[in-house]
Amino acid sequence: MTRRRLNPAADPVLVIATHNPGKLREIEALVAPYGFSAVSAGALGLPEPAEDGTTFIENARIKALAAARASGKPALADDSGIAVEALHGAPGIFSARWAGPGKDFAAAMDRVRRELSWRGAEEGARAHFVSALTLAWPDGHCEDFEGVSHGTLTFPPRGERGFGYDPIFVPEGGARTYAEIDPAEKNRTSHRADAFRQLDAACLA
Amino acid sequence: MTRRRLNPAADPVLVIATHNPGKLREIEALVAPYGFSAVSAGALGLPEPAEDGTTFIENARIKALAAARASGKPALADDSGIAVEALHGAPGIFSARWAGPGKDFAAAMDRVRRELSWRGAEEGARAHFVSALTLAWPDGHCEDFEGVSHGTLTFPPRGERGFGYDPIFVPEGGARTYAEIDPAEKNRTSHRADAFRQLDAACLA
Repeated sequence: MTRRRLNPAADPVLVIATHNPGKLREIEALVAPYGFSAVSAGALGLPEPAEDGTTFIENARIKALAAARASGKPALADDSGIAVEALHGAPGIFSARWAGPGKDFAAAMDRVRRELSWRGAEEGARAHFVSALTLAWPDGHCEDFEGVSHGTLTFPPRGERGFGYDPIFVPEGGARTYAEIDPAEKNRTSHRADAFRQLDAACLA
Repeated sequence: MTRRRLNPAADPVLVIATHNPGKLREIEALVAPYGFSAVSAGALGLPEPAEDGTTFIENARIKALAAARASGKPALADDSGIAVEALHGAPGIFSARWAGPGKDFAAAMDRVRRELSWRGAEEGARAHFVSALTLAWPDGHCEDFEGVSHGTLTFPPRGERGFGYDPIFVPEGGARTYAEIDPAEKNRTSHRADAFRQLDAACLA
């Protein structure tokens, strides 16, 4: 498969198609070494498109294409969430929506606990974080990547770092939640890092 | 947990809150032994509500409550679909929507194959069918049940029976797809039968 590559000498500005400050911080750290000048869709005043796709990648495409077309520059979007196996992949693409307009992730994590409890599962339930990354160009071309991080859930939530569902997720082989580990360590091992390594190999390196 | 029970002597008419003829046929066979007079939401001319929930059970509740309130009678709804593990549970609650307005399940099954292929998986991928059943009363009370049937996927699709994704799903322990087995056998072993057994034990028997 031939991938279209992104060259920071020709396209020095990369639009980060997110309005989520936690994601923006992680993606800026990931693209920093390549010499792009990263600017967020929020800082450019671009509107947030309706994320009405049925998969992570469809939603990443919607966001990346909207930002690339509105800005005239290449744009990178991440759609991510947590898929709980005993919940058939929920909340999945609805991970942010379970937190409601007030972004109440304590309530969202409690809903996960209640949904598991109703099905007779809870502590140690298997889950995985998914990050779909789409790099889109103003002409509509897209390159898609999907990264995964497997682990288990723990209740009650633990830790103050990270964002979203990080306080209930213990990555495989570890004992601390994503909200307890060093952000640099999360950025080396996370679903987003996994997707970014693929993007790097195909379109950047 | 105290469950509200349904008594066919007091409430002889049960509304089946579906406009899907395949589901209607299976649910009518499941409720027939109890002596209800089953009537479908379609036959009553009830509108189809927007299924905008984020889980199977939310969508089953939306359909059951809409039918119970509009008809003034107890209503039973099923929301079901197939969750492919390597696709993080997709198509899941979007199983019908992947077939589009023309209900083109050949195209939907081909999309499953392409999504698996893009991720380096395909033949033998693990999947499970989910059936969420909600029994709703006109006063808004709901009883929810969830049944599951585990299996693997096979391509190309095989068999002419059943409906939806049945031609690519081989239940655990079997060799034939859901579209190849006898409908009576499917109705004894399926996700819908699993959910119905729970409903039966809690609300009917």
